[in-house]
Amino acid sequence: MTPERSWWGWGTTDRALSDDECVALGGLVPGLPDRPRAVPRVEDVTLPVSRLAPPSSLPVTTDPAVRASHTYGKAYRDVVRALSGDLPGAPDAVACPVTEDDVVRLLDWAGSAGVVVVPFGGGSSVVGGVEYRGDRAWLSMDLTALDRVLEVDPVSRAARIQAGALGPVLEEQVRPHGLTLRHFPQSFEFSTLGGWLATRAGGHFATLHTHIDDLVESMRFVTPAGVSESWRLPGSGAGPSPDRLFLGSEGTLGVVTEAWMRLQDRPRFKASTSVTFRDMTTATAAVREIAQAGLYPANCRLLDPGEAALSGASSSGECVLVLGVESAVHPVEGRLAELTDLAHAHGGAVAARAGARDGAAEAWRSAFLRMPYVRDGMARMSAIVETFETACTWDRVEEVYATVQAEIGAAVQEVTGAPGLVNCRFTHVYPDGAAPYLTVIAAGRLGSEVAMWDDVKTAAMEVLGRLGATVTHHHAIGRDHRPGYDRQRPEPFAVALRSVKAALDPAGILNPGVLIDPV
Amino acid sequence: MTPERSWWGWGTTDRALSDDECVALGGLVPGLPDRPRAVPRVEDVTLPVSRLAPPSSLPVTTDPAVRASHTYGKAYRDVVRALSGDLPGAPDAVACPVTEDDVVRLLDWAGSAGVVVVPFGGGSSVVGGVEYRGDRAWLSMDLTALDRVLEVDPVSRAARIQAGALGPVLEEQVRPHGLTLRHFPQSFEFSTLGGWLATRAGGHFATLHTHIDDLVESMRFVTPAGVSESWRLPGSGAGPSPDRLFLGSEGTLGVVTEAWMRLQDRPRFKASTSVTFRDMTTATAAVREIAQAGLYPANCRLLDPGEAALSGASSSGECVLVLGVESAVHPVEGRLAELTDLAHAHGGAVAARAGARDGAAEAWRSAFLRMPYVRDGMARMSAIVETFETACTWDRVEEVYATVQAEIGAAVQEVTGAPGLVNCRFTHVYPDGAAPYLTVIAAGRLGSEVAMWDDVKTAAMEVLGRLGATVTHHHAIGRDHRPGYDRQRPEPFAVALRSVKAALDPAGILNPGVLIDPV
Repeated sequence: MTPERSWWGWGTTDRALSDDECVALGGLVPGLPDRPRAVPRVEDVTLPVSRLAPPSSLPVTTDPAVRASHTYGKAYRDVVRALSGDLPGAPDAVACPVTEDDVVRLLDWAGSAGVVVVPFGGGSSVVGGVEYRGDRAWLSMDLTALDRVLEVDPVSRAARIQAGALGPVLEEQVRPHGLTLRHFPQSFEFSTLGGWLATRAGGHFATLHTHIDDLVESMRFVTPAGVSESWRLPGSGAGPSPDRLFLGSEGTLGVVTEAWMRLQDRPRFKASTSVTFRDMTTATAAVREIAQAGLYPANCRLLDPGEAALSGASSSGECVLVLGVESAVHPVEGRLAELTDLAHAHGGAVAARAGARDGAAEAWRSAFLRMPYVRDGMARMSAIVETFETACTWDRVEEVYATVQAEIGAAVQEVTGAPGLVNCRFTHVYPDGAAPYLTVIAAGRLGSEVAMWDDVKTAAMEVLGRLGATVTHHHAIGRDHRPGYDRQRPEPFAVALRSVKAALDPAGILNPGVLIDPV
Repeated sequence: MTPERSWWGWGTTDRALSDDECVALGGLVPGLPDRPRAVPRVEDVTLPVSRLAPPSSLPVTTDPAVRASHTYGKAYRDVVRALSGDLPGAPDAVACPVTEDDVVRLLDWAGSAGVVVVPFGGGSSVVGGVEYRGDRAWLSMDLTALDRVLEVDPVSRAARIQAGALGPVLEEQVRPHGLTLRHFPQSFEFSTLGGWLATRAGGHFATLHTHIDDLVESMRFVTPAGVSESWRLPGSGAGPSPDRLFLGSEGTLGVVTEAWMRLQDRPRFKASTSVTFRDMTTATAAVREIAQAGLYPANCRLLDPGEAALSGASSSGECVLVLGVESAVHPVEGRLAELTDLAHAHGGAVAARAGARDGAAEAWRSAFLRMPYVRDGMARMSAIVETFETACTWDRVEEVYATVQAEIGAAVQEVTGAPGLVNCRFTHVYPDGAAPYLTVIAAGRLGSEVAMWDDVKTAAMEVLGRLGATVTHHHAIGRDHRPGYDRQRPEPFAVALRSVKAALDPAGILNPGVLIDPV
């Protein structure tokens, strides 16, 4: 039996924290209530009356429970609002296309009826990408019924995959061919290929092919102005890349319906280990040298002391670097040794028992997958638990790390009256820079949690923008990142994007407010 | 003393073939004249009267020799037309901006005066990208005075480089820092960073980072609607990539003035070898396995028997695979051994004396750099000597190779009355496909060479389009590839591109006819 999906929080209900677990966690943050907030039953939540009565020929429902579960993504602020039964902006209806033709017909109808359409994959957006904040009637278009692998090309190692396939659903279908997409974002179980493409998701690999973009061979993309299909090509220099314009368009220009994706042989050889460093300065220098050595480790995740402690990787105040190498063809111990030699030369202490499995690495992975459930449990205790992420060049990494720590710490202090935790890890590294990922944990006040987090988030966007660090490395823009994005995006590109929007979505129905403002 | 640049042909005049060398080469192709066509002196060429009298405050010249040398790129058909003194479409004037502000002022003036502007880097386009085929007055904008490295960030290994810097000019400026861009297209000496960016040039590396696109950290891009500057970021997921829209825009949307480029440490360890295979089927299987093994050789160039013979790599009717590995950090013999093991398992015979230098590899490299001069010498003998290139997924590589060989061979036979040579090499390989590069050598008829080649090229575009192989892997679209490009480009993307063009270049002055038609 498939476990039930949570309508308000992360993942499946069977993995949600119990009340007792919430209380135990809440004890770690001074100043929280004694008991968790109750979880409202979806049938008790009041929704606005639907303004839509789509033709019965279209696959659309106005079922309240379905509407409720498509109101928000899964950001902290989404979870808190849902927990509070606060759903005034619920979609008027939810469409569940089962064919690409359904998508075309839905867009045609919505265009003629002036109905807003917000594409919805797994619904795991943490940036307000799947809700609508305007006044028009709107349709959430859930694409998860388009979940099949339609074709596999074992010679080129590629597959044509429908965009609504969740991570495990697509992996299950390519596994019999000995192949894997190997794109494992934290949301893997609850996000779709189309969502990854629409948001330029970051995945499994810490180096080299960090974003889903590089795994795309071609895409089918339904716009109100017609269907775009790029050719299957391993590489091309024929004008600006069509795919690269639609990748990251976040549902504002069209809907991905399928893509030919580059797969890989399943890895046969793996090795991983962890290295501890006494401080972030030495650790950062080591990671930079590793990132610039052309060795391309699959994993190269640096945890600062707070993050190492929180995840159980180390409680001694040190930084922990988790390194992993994999190959489908050759043993990888030699490569791992080259990596650890570089780390050792910077004063890193390599874990004695390097091998296929490593304690710190395992602890990290387990905590990683559990984290969203913990976040929801903490949210029920009125804690503030949220993340944000960025990337910058190496010349600024230390300044960004130190400044963000200081300023977000100060913002948390100001908003909550207590210091809270501001932890950092580097999730992806590049020859020219790194992607720091921040976790904030603090005591919220019941009923004010969203406003409190929004104040911290505003401070985060301000400091990142000031330092020239990207507003997002892989969480996307949605609605929540618009202020930082508007600052970062070159104005002529904004002009270009608006012109494309007007040309491909002349009725302005697609995800208005994301990336660009409705005209 | 800097050698003089040829106004009609490739490179510098000191390296052009002598008349005797032309005759000797001509002897290899039956049916050619006894003597080479004379090279016209630029001062003897008749140019149309310039229709432009730009304000004296702008850096513009109407010097006939300068206009003549900016009339065409360096395709075979360009060289033949120039040799024939056939320059009716010469630019009315040539601009030589020395600052970005000059570029802005030139675009402002051209926009208000309705003058067409064609950006010109090294002028090495082989696709008609730097000429103009319309009726309006036009300005060739030569950017080579913008040739400085403005800033080097040794920590992030990146440099801010002006777009007009030729390959050797920029390498010379970053070398003192121990760094290199390591982008070495065949045109390296005579093409610019801006040209590479505008055309998505292919470079040194046979795998992984094959195109200049991946080496871009940020770009400054002057459009008639304003200057776009992206942030320096190692990676980002903030909406569709602004850089990726402008990369490959071939002067139709704006002019690249500078870019932060990702550099590398100069390689300290290199190893290369060659492997021979009895036929293309086994060689292709070996190369595919190598491309899919995650080893990322710097060089992985497969020469078919004709190409191997022509370049002197092998005259025994075998295929030759040239493999090279390099690193700035670690010895690479182990990696090379992993590669040759894979090749050997497919029946490849590995050259006995593998090492830092390999005979077949050296022969190839020497022939590679000499080839454009040979092409010009052959052109003077009325031979047809030209190349075209493509890419396709592995499932179609053998079919594309066989079909192109057959159909282009037939086209050459039909056009010239003799079979000619149709050789192939794979210049770049990917996990999901390869980039075949074709060389055609045949006997032309004096005065008809361009028309004869155009017939062969039309056949090439037709067969590639029919097989779903890209019209260009790295030579760009320009004007010559428009029919194939229009077939390949998804229509909604064409709609998007036209809308961007209208928004950023409302007067339609920038390189009209390239990529999209003037409105």
